[in-house]
Amino acid sequence: MIIDKVLVKKIIQPRPLDSHKGTFGRVLLIGGNYPYGGAIIMAASACVNSGAGLVTVATHKDNITALHSRLPESMAFDMAEKDRLTEQIAAADVILIGPGLAEDDLARQTFDLLWQSITAQQILVIDGSALNLLAKRKSAGWPSEQIILTPHQKEWERLSGLAISKQTEEATQTALAAFPKGTVLVAKSHQTKLYQNSKVGKICVGGPYQATGGMGDTLAGMIAGFVAQFHLDRFDVTAAAVFLHSYIAEQLSKQAYVVLPTRISTEIARVMKEMSD
Amino acid sequence: MIIDKVLVKKIIQPRPLDSHKGTFGRVLLIGGNYPYGGAIIMAASACVNSGAGLVTVATHKDNITALHSRLPESMAFDMAEKDRLTEQIAAADVILIGPGLAEDDLARQTFDLLWQSITAQQILVIDGSALNLLAKRKSAGWPSEQIILTPHQKEWERLSGLAISKQTEEATQTALAAFPKGTVLVAKSHQTKLYQNSKVGKICVGGPYQATGGMGDTLAGMIAGFVAQFHLDRFDVTAAAVFLHSYIAEQLSKQAYVVLPTRISTEIARVMKEMSD
Amino acid sequence: MIIDKVLVKKIIQPRPLDSHKGTFGRVLLIGGNYPYGGAIIMAASACVNSGAGLVTVATHKDNITALHSRLPESMAFDMAEKDRLTEQIAAADVILIGPGLAEDDLARQTFDLLWQSITAQQILVIDGSALNLLAKRKSAGWPSEQIILTPHQKEWERLSGLAISKQTEEATQTALAAFPKGTVLVAKSHQTKLYQNSKVGKICVGGPYQATGGMGDTLAGMIAGFVAQFHLDRFDVTAAAVFLHSYIAEQLSKQAYVVLPTRISTEIARVMKEMSD
Amino acid sequence: MIIDKVLVKKIIQPRPLDSHKGTFGRVLLIGGNYPYGGAIIMAASACVNSGAGLVTVATHKDNITALHSRLPESMAFDMAEKDRLTEQIAAADVILIGPGLAEDDLARQTFDLLWQSITAQQILVIDGSALNLLAKRKSAGWPSEQIILTPHQKEWERLSGLAISKQTEEATQTALAAFPKGTVLVAKSHQTKLYQNSKVGKICVGGPYQATGGMGDTLAGMIAGFVAQFHLDRFDVTAAAVFLHSYIAEQLSKQAYVVLPTRISTEIARVMKEMSD
Repeated sequence: MIIDKVLVKKIIQPRPLDSHKGTFGRVLLIGGNYPYGGAIIMAASACVNSGAGLVTVATHKDNITALHSRLPESMAFDMAEKDRLTEQIAAADVILIGPGLAEDDLARQTFDLLWQSITAQQILVIDGSALNLLAKRKSAGWPSEQIILTPHQKEWERLSGLAISKQTEEATQTALAAFPKGTVLVAKSHQTKLYQNSKVGKICVGGPYQATGGMGDTLAGMIAGFVAQFHLDRFDVTAAAVFLHSYIAEQLSKQAYVVLPTRISTEIARVMKEMSD
Repeated sequence: MIIDKVLVKKIIQPRPLDSHKGTFGRVLLIGGNYPYGGAIIMAASACVNSGAGLVTVATHKDNITALHSRLPESMAFDMAEKDRLTEQIAAADVILIGPGLAEDDLARQTFDLLWQSITAQQILVIDGSALNLLAKRKSAGWPSEQIILTPHQKEWERLSGLAISKQTEEATQTALAAFPKGTVLVAKSHQTKLYQNSKVGKICVGGPYQATGGMGDTLAGMIAGFVAQFHLDRFDVTAAAVFLHSYIAEQLSKQAYVVLPTRISTEIARVMKEMSD
Repeated sequence: MIIDKVLVKKIIQPRPLDSHKGTFGRVLLIGGNYPYGGAIIMAASACVNSGAGLVTVATHKDNITALHSRLPESMAFDMAEKDRLTEQIAAADVILIGPGLAEDDLARQTFDLLWQSITAQQILVIDGSALNLLAKRKSAGWPSEQIILTPHQKEWERLSGLAISKQTEEATQTALAAFPKGTVLVAKSHQTKLYQNSKVGKICVGGPYQATGGMGDTLAGMIAGFVAQFHLDRFDVTAAAVFLHSYIAEQLSKQAYVVLPTRISTEIARVMKEMSD
Repeated sequence: MIIDKVLVKKIIQPRPLDSHKGTFGRVLLIGGNYPYGGAIIMAASACVNSGAGLVTVATHKDNITALHSRLPESMAFDMAEKDRLTEQIAAADVILIGPGLAEDDLARQTFDLLWQSITAQQILVIDGSALNLLAKRKSAGWPSEQIILTPHQKEWERLSGLAISKQTEEATQTALAAFPKGTVLVAKSHQTKLYQNSKVGKICVGGPYQATGGMGDTLAGMIAGFVAQFHLDRFDVTAAAVFLHSYIAEQLSKQAYVVLPTRISTEIARVMKEMSD
């Protein structure tokens, strides 16, 4: 199937009048470990601008000031604080782990703590270096049943065992069967595709102006923001976020040779409004 | 009564020519404790943009850099410095406590120090976690007679003992009688109302695009900025701030699915100008 | 005399083609001591935006990150580093001391070091708390002969001994005679005047939308930027900066009830261009 | 030869559809040592906005927060971490050293480490204080064969031994022969020229509105961004960056008496798009 505006408009409906922050979900974002602090800042900006109700960031303690300088709308704490992290995991509707997480000891411990604490109905988006950590421990069972994976081709190779040159639609579908039923796979490439069970979706917007650092972090934050607030089919909601991300980039590219990830975030609310009318 | 532009225009009058910073009030904002640094940044931005004469922020020491990065217009000091805090409390015309204050030891000590130091004619705006701290010690008498409370429904439940489902206009009025005479209550919900003695005011602007983290912090900062500079009936001045906050959000929502709190702050001075003409 | 656009246009001439950073002066700004970090950020922004060639800031070490976040164009160092400060004083064409300097030990030591190091031909702008430090040691002789003072009324009272109610034009002129010949006095009030020897200049732009914290810091930074690059009569150059500061505020006030200092800085280069055409 | 739009349009071609971040190069920027943190922030902003695929910054550890506040798109690490620096040097396609590097021990050690680690095919852009460090050790052989030098006149004097008054085209060409064959020299002055072997190029855009601190840092970042993504003749690619930098400044100068370096960066992607159409 082609993912297009028709689908997006089905997802982005006018908000209910009788609503409050909680209606639009509590999101916990985990990442921004040294030296990748910027990644989680971009993910959190995208998430807040997408309309998530409450956004909390677990990050390297040295990254909190930069995050708050750009985004006072999100809360932020030191991801090395295990008690607080455990508490915040419990309080979240959606958890995104990975943007700028790195793969050092702190990253591994954080990943492990999440793996032990998360429960079946919490939505888990796994991105960036968390996909590599996952690749190393894939055997260990899945605590959540609501998984969204957002690998680029190399990360998908590590995760699935499929070499990049062998990542055909069929092979990817077969490999995905090893993951929990219902897992949504966003297979990022210059022609991003979405997979879930037997479904495959294709994005026909976007282009090479998006090939710049941080683009994936922004996408991951949008996906988290979308699944937090739109309580509809998880494949469709993810697809709407992926579409919109590239759609905004395409619009901006009319006046920009390269589109910066942070520029996309500034347009999300405007384009969502357009889609909801 | 319906709070509308007519009231707002009565409050926002052209400034006197022979005036200086002091004319528009000294405001002290207390909050932004770990891990909620962003909250006081949003409150202070709203306060400065509303036209308060001088804005000083008492916050967690690690939050000062992020605050100054966004808002060099405000002064900022470590709220753990008791002597300086005592001094600044004495110097303020208006004190707002609560945005991101948290409820840890530092928060409690800060709240207690304020409670001991503030005097009857200083205006005190109590918001966020300070309302919870207040709920726990309600019996202790009120040092200020110029109180503004800005609870959302859950906070009002803790403060008044009224379960959310029982927060009718009548019940709220009855509960408010236990607070100092003249206390202004801003009962935030998707249909925010203002109460003072026997008066009730209703806001008919705003909507679900406001349901996002930080919206209340921004409102609290605007209220503090308004009472600092407009030396008129406290209910009316508070009402003008509450109206304008949602009015700006409504205007912005025509081009945004969700309206970020920091976006509201950038429009305050412009819309105040409109209203003053 | 009335200071108006005619004067400003005489000062702001097109830049010489064969020029480089040095042509437009090296400015050292000293201030932003705890808890007033924002003040020097605003002064430095105004100075850079006014077109000074090279701007260096001596500030509290904890303030450097916030400064660089907003203004990477300026260099910044810890004002407690005496050797570096001495070196930078020697290298500067213009020195501004005072915005957010405070009056603690560090402030006093910094002021004293400047007083010992500065030489007769370096231009010295004294603002804010440095005026209070100066008031306490007025007897000590003047190392620079190129002085610009920017007190508001209370600071002028401390400096001249004239009570605010007695600050008539005549009394101020008489008091100014106690300062080095040629000293330019910018006597800030809701009707700012400039004095030098027997000259008095008056600004007829500006208004109460400027009565907000940081306005004076921004003005001081503009003055420093102007005297650094325009090597003309010091009274006239200072007057041009004072005029432009209020002129920009007046333009912005058509769409803003209060004009933030940082907003003024964003317009300086544009309005200077207008004036130079 | 005159460097003009015709050349620029030859360089800035539409991006290939089947591309990813790696296609547009990995750039390592080294600089922003105390007290010059802002310089590398400006260089990195220019580099990211020029479309480099992945930008990593090695800087003073105290500068990371300010960098991430302004530019979450880049990674950043403490340049004193030798292992990480060695690793990152190995991973880079292009290395820019110098903006705000200073000349202290840390600067020297960093420069030396780079000199030992870089290999012949990695492009090396040397700017600012790194040129002075280079001047002191010129004898030691050149590890890279892909050199771009961006001195202003005083730096070129130190590097070539030619006094500023003797820097004629001929003398500069002769002096350049002492550097590795193919070295591109960007000789910055109010009439910037480019040299390579027997070629000389001249820029006929730009003006004195560019004479302000940070302009060169921004140019260096653009050059790094251009050579990272455009795999064409190095002289031509560098020339395109130099032209565009001044061309943008000239456009902005129509509405600004002085053009700030950070303002240039915000226009790069737009003007590159214009050129690519």
